[in-house]
Amino acid sequence: MPRSTRRRPALAHPAVEEIDLYDVLHALSDPTRMTIVRILRAEPERACGTFPVDVAPSTLSHHFKVLRESGVINQREEGNRRFSALRTVDLERRFPGLLDTVLAALARNEHGAEPAAEPAWHG
Amino acid sequence: MPRSTRRRPALAHPAVEEIDLYDVLHALSDPTRMTIVRILRAEPERACGTFPVDVAPSTLSHHFKVLRESGVINQREEGNRRFSALRTVDLERRFPGLLDTVLAALARNEHGAEPAAEPAWHG
Repeated sequence: MPRSTRRRPALAHPAVEEIDLYDVLHALSDPTRMTIVRILRAEPERACGTFPVDVAPSTLSHHFKVLRESGVINQREEGNRRFSALRTVDLERRFPGLLDTVLAALARNEHGAEPAAEPAWHG
Repeated sequence: MPRSTRRRPALAHPAVEEIDLYDVLHALSDPTRMTIVRILRAEPERACGTFPVDVAPSTLSHHFKVLRESGVINQREEGNRRFSALRTVDLERRFPGLLDTVLAALARNEHGAEPAAEPAWHG
């Protein structure tokens, strides 16, 4: 497996028991980051330049950093490419059901909800 | 039921079908706001000055506003008091399972997680 010989700072990843709920919820509270998560849910890993999101490279780099430092994704470098993968197993171990529940909520968010039966007091 | 005669702007609350996932996740991504949510999960409603959180009144007021405008809580005024209630039914209708899953994750966040069996690649 070819590796870059250029030295770079190691990418920071929290250990599974260090993954913090507030960091994860913050990471998931952004549409671009959620798009990245949804894409990664469907494949083992993906090169960073290949995500179909319409944001500036520096912005995208920030989003990946937030996702990585919160423990939502893993990133590894190979040559001059960086690959991202969802930490599905780690997240499920740390916060069972959270990722799937949020992704199910995302589907409802995008498709809208059925109107309430009555416009009652919001209880 | 006594009501204040002083006119104030109506409190803004999104309708259930307008509740946005990103707003909800952002609202829940803060420890003080999550404390408010956890307290409200256990009782029908509570007067705003009675929450055991150690933040400045203006900060607390901001947190309540974020929770209300995201659709997480309902607020009503009675006389010169404001009461807050969790929109449990609305949230469950809009995003089934989300609130309970996040609160279960919160319990794990505070008590720590079991260490991973192996310090392996974060897959």
